[in-house]
Amino acid sequence: MVIVMAPEATQGDIEAVVELVRSAGGEAFVSRGVHRTIIGLVGDIDQFGALNLRSRKGVGDVMRVSVPYKLVSREHHRQRSEIWVGGVPIGPATVTVIAGPCTVETPEQTLAAAQMARRAGAAMLRGGAFKPRTSPYAFQGLGEVGLKILSEVRDEVGLPVVTEVVDPASVDLVCAHADMLQVGTRNMQNFALLQAVGSAGKPVLLKRGMNSTIEEWLMAAEYIAQRGNLDIVLCERGIRTFETATRNTLDISAVPVAQRLSHLPVIVDPSHSGGRRDLVLPLTRAAIAVGADGVIVDVHPDPAKALCDGDQALAEEDLTELGAITATMPQLLGRALTPAPQPAAAASR
Amino acid sequence: MVIVMAPEATQGDIEAVVELVRSAGGEAFVSRGVHRTIIGLVGDIDQFGALNLRSRKGVGDVMRVSVPYKLVSREHHRQRSEIWVGGVPIGPATVTVIAGPCTVETPEQTLAAAQMARRAGAAMLRGGAFKPRTSPYAFQGLGEVGLKILSEVRDEVGLPVVTEVVDPASVDLVCAHADMLQVGTRNMQNFALLQAVGSAGKPVLLKRGMNSTIEEWLMAAEYIAQRGNLDIVLCERGIRTFETATRNTLDISAVPVAQRLSHLPVIVDPSHSGGRRDLVLPLTRAAIAVGADGVIVDVHPDPAKALCDGDQALAEEDLTELGAITATMPQLLGRALTPAPQPAAAASR
Amino acid sequence: MVIVMAPEATQGDIEAVVELVRSAGGEAFVSRGVHRTIIGLVGDIDQFGALNLRSRKGVGDVMRVSVPYKLVSREHHRQRSEIWVGGVPIGPATVTVIAGPCTVETPEQTLAAAQMARRAGAAMLRGGAFKPRTSPYAFQGLGEVGLKILSEVRDEVGLPVVTEVVDPASVDLVCAHADMLQVGTRNMQNFALLQAVGSAGKPVLLKRGMNSTIEEWLMAAEYIAQRGNLDIVLCERGIRTFETATRNTLDISAVPVAQRLSHLPVIVDPSHSGGRRDLVLPLTRAAIAVGADGVIVDVHPDPAKALCDGDQALAEEDLTELGAITATMPQLLGRALTPAPQPAAAASR
Amino acid sequence: MVIVMAPEATQGDIEAVVELVRSAGGEAFVSRGVHRTIIGLVGDIDQFGALNLRSRKGVGDVMRVSVPYKLVSREHHRQRSEIWVGGVPIGPATVTVIAGPCTVETPEQTLAAAQMARRAGAAMLRGGAFKPRTSPYAFQGLGEVGLKILSEVRDEVGLPVVTEVVDPASVDLVCAHADMLQVGTRNMQNFALLQAVGSAGKPVLLKRGMNSTIEEWLMAAEYIAQRGNLDIVLCERGIRTFETATRNTLDISAVPVAQRLSHLPVIVDPSHSGGRRDLVLPLTRAAIAVGADGVIVDVHPDPAKALCDGDQALAEEDLTELGAITATMPQLLGRALTPAPQPAAAASR
Repeated sequence: MVIVMAPEATQGDIEAVVELVRSAGGEAFVSRGVHRTIIGLVGDIDQFGALNLRSRKGVGDVMRVSVPYKLVSREHHRQRSEIWVGGVPIGPATVTVIAGPCTVETPEQTLAAAQMARRAGAAMLRGGAFKPRTSPYAFQGLGEVGLKILSEVRDEVGLPVVTEVVDPASVDLVCAHADMLQVGTRNMQNFALLQAVGSAGKPVLLKRGMNSTIEEWLMAAEYIAQRGNLDIVLCERGIRTFETATRNTLDISAVPVAQRLSHLPVIVDPSHSGGRRDLVLPLTRAAIAVGADGVIVDVHPDPAKALCDGDQALAEEDLTELGAITATMPQLLGRALTPAPQPAAAASR
Repeated sequence: MVIVMAPEATQGDIEAVVELVRSAGGEAFVSRGVHRTIIGLVGDIDQFGALNLRSRKGVGDVMRVSVPYKLVSREHHRQRSEIWVGGVPIGPATVTVIAGPCTVETPEQTLAAAQMARRAGAAMLRGGAFKPRTSPYAFQGLGEVGLKILSEVRDEVGLPVVTEVVDPASVDLVCAHADMLQVGTRNMQNFALLQAVGSAGKPVLLKRGMNSTIEEWLMAAEYIAQRGNLDIVLCERGIRTFETATRNTLDISAVPVAQRLSHLPVIVDPSHSGGRRDLVLPLTRAAIAVGADGVIVDVHPDPAKALCDGDQALAEEDLTELGAITATMPQLLGRALTPAPQPAAAASR
Repeated sequence: MVIVMAPEATQGDIEAVVELVRSAGGEAFVSRGVHRTIIGLVGDIDQFGALNLRSRKGVGDVMRVSVPYKLVSREHHRQRSEIWVGGVPIGPATVTVIAGPCTVETPEQTLAAAQMARRAGAAMLRGGAFKPRTSPYAFQGLGEVGLKILSEVRDEVGLPVVTEVVDPASVDLVCAHADMLQVGTRNMQNFALLQAVGSAGKPVLLKRGMNSTIEEWLMAAEYIAQRGNLDIVLCERGIRTFETATRNTLDISAVPVAQRLSHLPVIVDPSHSGGRRDLVLPLTRAAIAVGADGVIVDVHPDPAKALCDGDQALAEEDLTELGAITATMPQLLGRALTPAPQPAAAASR
Repeated sequence: MVIVMAPEATQGDIEAVVELVRSAGGEAFVSRGVHRTIIGLVGDIDQFGALNLRSRKGVGDVMRVSVPYKLVSREHHRQRSEIWVGGVPIGPATVTVIAGPCTVETPEQTLAAAQMARRAGAAMLRGGAFKPRTSPYAFQGLGEVGLKILSEVRDEVGLPVVTEVVDPASVDLVCAHADMLQVGTRNMQNFALLQAVGSAGKPVLLKRGMNSTIEEWLMAAEYIAQRGNLDIVLCERGIRTFETATRNTLDISAVPVAQRLSHLPVIVDPSHSGGRRDLVLPLTRAAIAVGADGVIVDVHPDPAKALCDGDQALAEEDLTELGAITATMPQLLGRALTPAPQPAAAASR
């Protein structure tokens, strides 16, 4: 940390700050400038946090100089990580496609969507059983029934399943059916939930809060990691801005930025960011091109009848182009498309 | 709802949409323009939501024309509501001051802060026992021990207590000690928590999500109301914008806007919005002047030693001015300052 | 400035940076921490800007520790300034109300609006002759004809006139008719215009860019000041955020923040920020309460017929309440309402 | 346009609105719902704008249903346009790379940068002579001297030149040296400048305002088009959001969205959006993959010595990878890389 003393700070003010830092076990280096004095702090930053340095007499500003997360940072772990989910890798050597319906509605719809996903190059199945909805009057998902459908479809089609968990109380239930737990954008700072999934022993897909900075996203990952679980995949899904032409603004730059700060894989959700079917394929191409470790895409056998977010799902007629993208673009980046596991392999995991 | 057909929509497209709306039990009125046709929908809007009208052939845009919340709207309940918390009203006739420490640290600190609060005109005590913190390494609050301290201080000082609950699993515990449950800004769309506090039988202070629109805020209130609890107070606490000079940007306009859309009381948190002690008093004045039904303010007997957010707490030397504001400004708006209850009254509630 | 070296920086990297700073005439103090080294820089910050320090080997981050503006800062001029416009002061001792039509339409409408303004406590008249409009098909103002109308109304009613200038080429023309030049929100970073008004010898009302930080706003003021003109009044008028219930979000905190950073007066525009007539009076109260040095309000004799922004103008029936606010609130802050000058005085200025 | 009447609107209110619309030459269709009445308007939308419909008694909301721009819309011109600049096309069949120094510093630096640009696949040269800078104390560009350098380098290297113009008064001067005029992000709503470049008879590169919606961007293009100039290329360069890890947030979705709304070509600036050299190549790949019609990239022979934005310029060692991207990615999208013209051809244009 660096303390910038105010122009009017006295010698006594400076000495008081230095004393305070030392009393907390730190070291302080003073640089006297013409107009201002700067004090560099060395030691345990968490310790300094409780000193309320900004409130001290003569202090103008306090600036942090190191990242506030540890376990998920590349300073802690230089090599980018590869996470395995039910036999499927997500990491720097591959592009992993996750696809499926936004919401599980029926066994038939989920199976059809899973088969679409597989045909388009997906190695994992997505699908929502618990849906956090802005309106209490909107469809909230099938709950446990939906989880069982996902589980059965996984056994039939062979794709490991990622699904959202919205409440610490249902983490065990979701773990009984899913291969990976998703924490959604509205829950990115639901710390009780983060701690619960951190203790659950399953890989976690952590969506970025639509209003969260990259640093806050990595801090949320740190909450999970701190419980002993480093099998975390980050997912950029658009942030809230003043622009209203798209539901959210896909922050494509967040992919290389987060990959540079953290060793965790980073994937992109081109469906929820734009909220428009016509943007899904262009944004999928952009995501792979920018270096994402995967994408997660909504597909639906009959989007016009989807119970949730039907406006953004890819339909059967989009699959050829999606397949062409996943078949050709990863190589451009020196990567391979992650192959789908065989049904038997997944069933016996 | 209004459907705007695309310029290239055919007569068949228009008829298909009309048929679809009627099959869902609604009525559709067609206005043919020179370039575009508009279809007005009448009926149950929730029903129409599942039609994915935006995906239908020939549909250009779909616009909602009524508010998506019901129980909390002024269309449902014309008169602005007055909510009672442990004998203290919050509503259109009064200005209610809530004050106390950001975080409960010790019995002595909490008691001293409560006495400060009372001297400055507060009728309720705030204080955090469960603290949602961005970093897992930051102080997370005293938990149950903190609740007990609050409860004891309430009995001694006589101010009803509002405190945050962060997890559905601890709602009962918090209810055993508090007079009002606070849902914090990061949990405004934690729907499991909203439903739990909605069922708890205690008044709720619902802070606006720092990234939430006013409409989403009212939808979150609707989640609580839908469980049968209409004792909800809304709290504007600043939104996230591009400006970095303040921690968040206090959206002062949100007060009259929310009061016009909803019958629920709206108060302001001038401490967390700016995150700077020097802004608390000016923003308190602005909040009362704009018509807020109350304010909630951090005070601390020794801000420099606060374990959390000490940079924004008012100290002893600020109380005279805070007292002058609360003593003189409410009358300007034709309101009365809500008096603090007597200790005995609160103890026997 | 402070340079934070990357964790992997070598001793050679550190020495190279120190050498570079010294070669530019500065001084560098090195603080070696456990993980990182910090280098404090002393000297001419503008000089350091050209060193591209961020690109140097081993440099992790570069942080500025002093404000980038000089003439408008309170470090340069401790006392808050009072600016005089045609005999009317704007400054810390008073609350000055500026009112008038958004747009000059006819002599009758402008005169009626000026008389309304005067009745409601205004000491200055606003009115637009050159209107920057988002659409090229919208009414762009009467231009020179409008300026003449303003000038004549000023002579009759006695209120000094502020009006917008949108092009460096018309600064002289506007100066011939106005007492104060307004730079609008869309032109806050039109540097050619800032320089032109800086050289014009008239007081300037500088609206904050709707997307500009407070620091950028003060930098824009610095452009004007650098041309020798320190008669600048800052005007907060709302910033662009994700909230759509109001046209912009009034950043009420910007008033005390800017007053603390700069000696220039700061006023508020409650009409353009919200864009809604029902918000103008509550926001006017909030502006005065937060400590603004004045407000600038749209009034119109017949808002429903206004050629521009009629939805936000106050009408005759709002004036009683506006008058009550201006008559009672300034005293609360220890200020006086600025009285309107007599017609003769203004005419002979 | 659609008018949504308030729930409390009377029959008389509805009739008054219908009458008003008809008196302005429009037609009004009334749809009566259970709670609200909707009135669809047909006719000249500009005419309706002056009616201040939102202020009328009983009116709840007014919604626009058609786009407010005409000449630049795809409703006006279905085919996507190809714009030619000094013999170089920018349009749907190609990917055009524009590269060069952020700022012209010396003839040697500009020539070296132009040769770098050509080697990396560029068909046009960028370079700033007039620089809009946030600080009045920062380097403002070489002005006319810089234009002459650009002109000479163009003749030697053969790449047509695009350079920024910041003031209507210098449009003629810039036209004398440049092949294309750039309007920068801070001037996107400088309407006097838009009109001046619209009348200048040269192609225009219109950068998106960092705080402007896509609709406002297209309205700014409409200002240029309205003066008879449809040779406009749109350039997405990042928008201002709450995220601080990058200078701005590249809105990659804006490319397909703008291409769907407007027939004008859309290119991307990966250098200014991120403001970080390490992001330029990933964002260049993303831009081409999403379907941009080109990119504009900063290159500098010695970034550490650049007078402006050196932190984001590509250096010699980045060119191999940039060349590989431009050589392989356009084909993936069914496009060709636009070849650089021969020096002689450019000189004799």
